[in-house]
Amino acid sequence: MYYPEPIAKLIESFSRLPGIGPKTAARLAFHVLRMQEDDVIDFAKALVSVKRNLHYCSVCCNITDVDPCRICQDKSRDQSVICVVQEAKDLIAMERTKEFDGLYHVLQGAISPMEGIGPEEIRIAELLRRLEDERVQELILATNPNIEGEATSMYLSRLVKPFGIKVTRIAHGLPVGGDLEYADEVTLSKALEGRRELS
Amino acid sequence: MYYPEPIAKLIESFSRLPGIGPKTAARLAFHVLRMQEDDVIDFAKALVSVKRNLHYCSVCCNITDVDPCRICQDKSRDQSVICVVQEAKDLIAMERTKEFDGLYHVLQGAISPMEGIGPEEIRIAELLRRLEDERVQELILATNPNIEGEATSMYLSRLVKPFGIKVTRIAHGLPVGGDLEYADEVTLSKALEGRRELS
Repeated sequence: MYYPEPIAKLIESFSRLPGIGPKTAARLAFHVLRMQEDDVIDFAKALVSVKRNLHYCSVCCNITDVDPCRICQDKSRDQSVICVVQEAKDLIAMERTKEFDGLYHVLQGAISPMEGIGPEEIRIAELLRRLEDERVQELILATNPNIEGEATSMYLSRLVKPFGIKVTRIAHGLPVGGDLEYADEVTLSKALEGRRELS
Repeated sequence: MYYPEPIAKLIESFSRLPGIGPKTAARLAFHVLRMQEDDVIDFAKALVSVKRNLHYCSVCCNITDVDPCRICQDKSRDQSVICVVQEAKDLIAMERTKEFDGLYHVLQGAISPMEGIGPEEIRIAELLRRLEDERVQELILATNPNIEGEATSMYLSRLVKPFGIKVTRIAHGLPVGGDLEYADEVTLSKALEGRRELS
């Protein structure tokens, strides 16, 4: 033990964060030591506030400081489309495109038999309840393009079919700015399969 | 603004840390959201504690929670050698070698005319005061092997000479496990210059 206790504790807290190893944690802790006291106190308050003042929206299960969340409250948004995402940060990624003006549903995970996560562990029941609203006409499945995301999509599309609602899946293909040469085979096959006629 | 305010604030705090961009900051903030409340509170406390409970040792200028620091207090350490380093983390790196059993002096910086840091801005006066202790026989200059560190070393060695104390500089050369092929010219010349006869 070479560190004075207060700094050792902070290094430990930092190194518990994802992607932060012991060296980075030490560097960050030493940085905090040189920060203005006010900024450090703001940082500490922000940490606790995230835990205490954020909850899940009772409608779409997104994280929010008001309930229902600002998106669910916004009557100017298209109430007929619900975009289903896995996590709150996926919702933010969708919002960033500024292309989608409907509502969201955050599953808070994906079905993963490997990790013992079944349909009951994620917010599917809450989604089904929303489909009883007659205004809903389309469900866009925007789960991740990996095994768990695809499994969740398949499961949802079968589950929702009987409701007579249109169910779509976001397109797979080459990322814009990507390089065909470096694309993996699966992405390339999906891109080929999803090809569209140019007008 | 897509984030609820509490999380936006935390993202801002994280992104002020060195080497953490907006995407990593968002990832860390969302991780905090999923952490146990107790762990988050410990993290917040550790942040504030580092700022409030750590001070500089009145002897060696290292950061410490007791004064003098544990190293300066330790009578079993060799009181005749002082190893001069730039930062507290350099001291920790030296301690990690378990090869040095003397005392330290932390300059809290290096002389850098480019950044307007002169000898008065770093803890040189405190070092000179310590040299009045007759037990001190050797000063090991372990400042960084870059322009500022070398300048500081040169300055200190000239300043300390009149005291009749032995002044040494840590060796420059190839890092262990390094590759000669990839060594830069300056390091290689230093390694050649510092060559020692094998016994």
